[in-house]
Amino acid sequence: MHNTIPAAPKGFRFAGVRAGIKRDKTREDVSLIVSDIPATAAGVYTTNLVYAAPVAWDRALTPGCGFRAIAINSGNANACTGQRGLDDARGMAAAAAAEIGADERSVLVLSTGIIGEFLPRDTVAGGLRQAATALASDETSVVNAARGMMTTDTRPKLSGSTFTSDGTTATLLGMAKGAAMIGPRLATMLGVVLTDAAVDPADAQRLLREAAEETFNCVSVDGHTSTNDTVLLLANGAAGGTRLAGAGLDAFAEALHAACESLARQIADDGEGATHVLRIEVTGCESRDAARQIARAIGDSPLVKTAVHGADPNWGRIVSAAGYSGIAFDPSQLVLRVNGTLLFRDGAPVAFDADAVSASIKGSRETLIEVDIQSGPGRIRFYSSDLTAEYVHLNADYHT
Amino acid sequence: MHNTIPAAPKGFRFAGVRAGIKRDKTREDVSLIVSDIPATAAGVYTTNLVYAAPVAWDRALTPGCGFRAIAINSGNANACTGQRGLDDARGMAAAAAAEIGADERSVLVLSTGIIGEFLPRDTVAGGLRQAATALASDETSVVNAARGMMTTDTRPKLSGSTFTSDGTTATLLGMAKGAAMIGPRLATMLGVVLTDAAVDPADAQRLLREAAEETFNCVSVDGHTSTNDTVLLLANGAAGGTRLAGAGLDAFAEALHAACESLARQIADDGEGATHVLRIEVTGCESRDAARQIARAIGDSPLVKTAVHGADPNWGRIVSAAGYSGIAFDPSQLVLRVNGTLLFRDGAPVAFDADAVSASIKGSRETLIEVDIQSGPGRIRFYSSDLTAEYVHLNADYHT
Repeated sequence: MHNTIPAAPKGFRFAGVRAGIKRDKTREDVSLIVSDIPATAAGVYTTNLVYAAPVAWDRALTPGCGFRAIAINSGNANACTGQRGLDDARGMAAAAAAEIGADERSVLVLSTGIIGEFLPRDTVAGGLRQAATALASDETSVVNAARGMMTTDTRPKLSGSTFTSDGTTATLLGMAKGAAMIGPRLATMLGVVLTDAAVDPADAQRLLREAAEETFNCVSVDGHTSTNDTVLLLANGAAGGTRLAGAGLDAFAEALHAACESLARQIADDGEGATHVLRIEVTGCESRDAARQIARAIGDSPLVKTAVHGADPNWGRIVSAAGYSGIAFDPSQLVLRVNGTLLFRDGAPVAFDADAVSASIKGSRETLIEVDIQSGPGRIRFYSSDLTAEYVHLNADYHT
Repeated sequence: MHNTIPAAPKGFRFAGVRAGIKRDKTREDVSLIVSDIPATAAGVYTTNLVYAAPVAWDRALTPGCGFRAIAINSGNANACTGQRGLDDARGMAAAAAAEIGADERSVLVLSTGIIGEFLPRDTVAGGLRQAATALASDETSVVNAARGMMTTDTRPKLSGSTFTSDGTTATLLGMAKGAAMIGPRLATMLGVVLTDAAVDPADAQRLLREAAEETFNCVSVDGHTSTNDTVLLLANGAAGGTRLAGAGLDAFAEALHAACESLARQIADDGEGATHVLRIEVTGCESRDAARQIARAIGDSPLVKTAVHGADPNWGRIVSAAGYSGIAFDPSQLVLRVNGTLLFRDGAPVAFDADAVSASIKGSRETLIEVDIQSGPGRIRFYSSDLTAEYVHLNADYHT
């Protein structure tokens, strides 16, 4: 859990309630986030060809202006549900809109959970009605809203900060869910970032995409890209001041990047069954994309993930994963360090204290894997989680 | 284990001995296969940029004629070992050549095991000396040779048949090892196919590549392409008759394909910790490569693999894996069957008896996943294994 709950940006209210979609009736499964002022919205979405109905709804509407709410449910993904699923996504937006007296096209929707079952529309609508009466901006409401999007997550994921533009201080708050079906191809989870700064829709879209590219697109739990991955950004301008530009826009971009980075790391940290976070730093590549492709091959390899779980400095698995990444490089130029210790360079083994490296892996939640290809400026930071027997138990037993 | 051990082709002798490379001294770790007549050789190799020294040795020599032996060791991969590793691979060929009175360039080498430790050359040479005195062509010798290439395999993998060309009956024998670091990008393991037919080197190379493309290149245990993947084919002509052509060559190609298919399936079946083989049949694609890419995404998905382990007909995981494969298709055209039962079509769920499908998965070693994209003639058969807690235990505890 977090020691401190980040503050809500001005003009946003939150609720998370137990509507009864999940089998476990003690868990929140519907959330509502309302902006009292029409907000700019941007979104980035799954690249999966098989995308869920809420993705279709949101993608058609963003980027744009005039958004009033995000309606969220967990326990049901509304994916692979055909035309009825599209009708249900629209119905969910309409139900939330009716509660707050807004147009259905001013409401974005997020769903996560089981694929291929029709959305229980009355249950969702009942949850949204209950949520609308509970809307507030205190810490408990923020946490409840973050809980309402959780599936197998063990904890809500929040991140916040403030930034200043032309003397106006604005607040930014991010929340996310994700613990499996986390693949690195795009947003890879559900995420919401809210700010009371005023942002132009085109700027919002561009900066959200840039931030996602280096954060949510650099995290993998199991390499399985979901049907529902979505990150939404709402900016309502309630902090006052004009639309961000110049240094103010830069400050916002920095705060946005930091929030997305924190949430991405929290997702890997809460990977199903994970006992370690892998922080993979690949440098010296021809491009950022090349660095990410190498980092992804390492971060997705079950052999690397189990080696970290076993606190085994098995550098051969790391070097060979880089070798099959599809990126061309000279293996004799590759330099590998694990938790700061040099393990491989010049194409041959290096003498090192394996017990000490193993102890350093055992002793820390985070394992740092540094790979330098020594042939260019391209670099990336990538988060993954280790692979444990608990992951297998969770996914062999989590039935449709 | 096999009920029947396939017969050795004429003119080949085999041995597998305990040289002491492996920590477990009761297990074979050096094998020698000798052709008494100089043989045609062909090879297909890992696509990993980081390839092992024996791969470099063999790749430089094949395809060609005049080969006398294959020297094999397990327990040490001779990979990531730099110039010294290349010298060791050559030294291993030279040691075997000296034992049988042949030129070092007539000996191919195969190594598998731990990456990044230097080959214990004296131990390997001692093993080859011992093996040279034990060479024979009976069933025990064939099995011992297959055992000498095993690492975490639980059983030797053999396949054999006979075929006829112009009235001459020839024999074909294949052996393979592989239970992890099995990725689908090329040969994906060690394999040896021997025949006493006479085959032109160019034909041997072409037919081996074609067979590997549809067999060894269509199997995945963990998607991690090894540094050592190699399949070698030796054809020594001892059965008599002229070099294969026309219908004789077709008969050989068919026998070769069948042996490779059997060995590939045995590798998936013996995947580390596996309780199920996944047979994934993808049809209706624009090309064979497109079909394989979809099959690979399904076969590599940890969520699909754990679902099969849990006997869960979780079709959403299968459909969404197809969706992120990178192959463009119309999801509403996708038809999915598991063990013969229709689970998904027209982009929406289909009513089915989940308990019956679950029981059929539980009741059989093989789970059949059929995906039809309905848009072309491209098809593939792909083998994978399920993901179990035992896989994690084996790989978290198998230390460098």
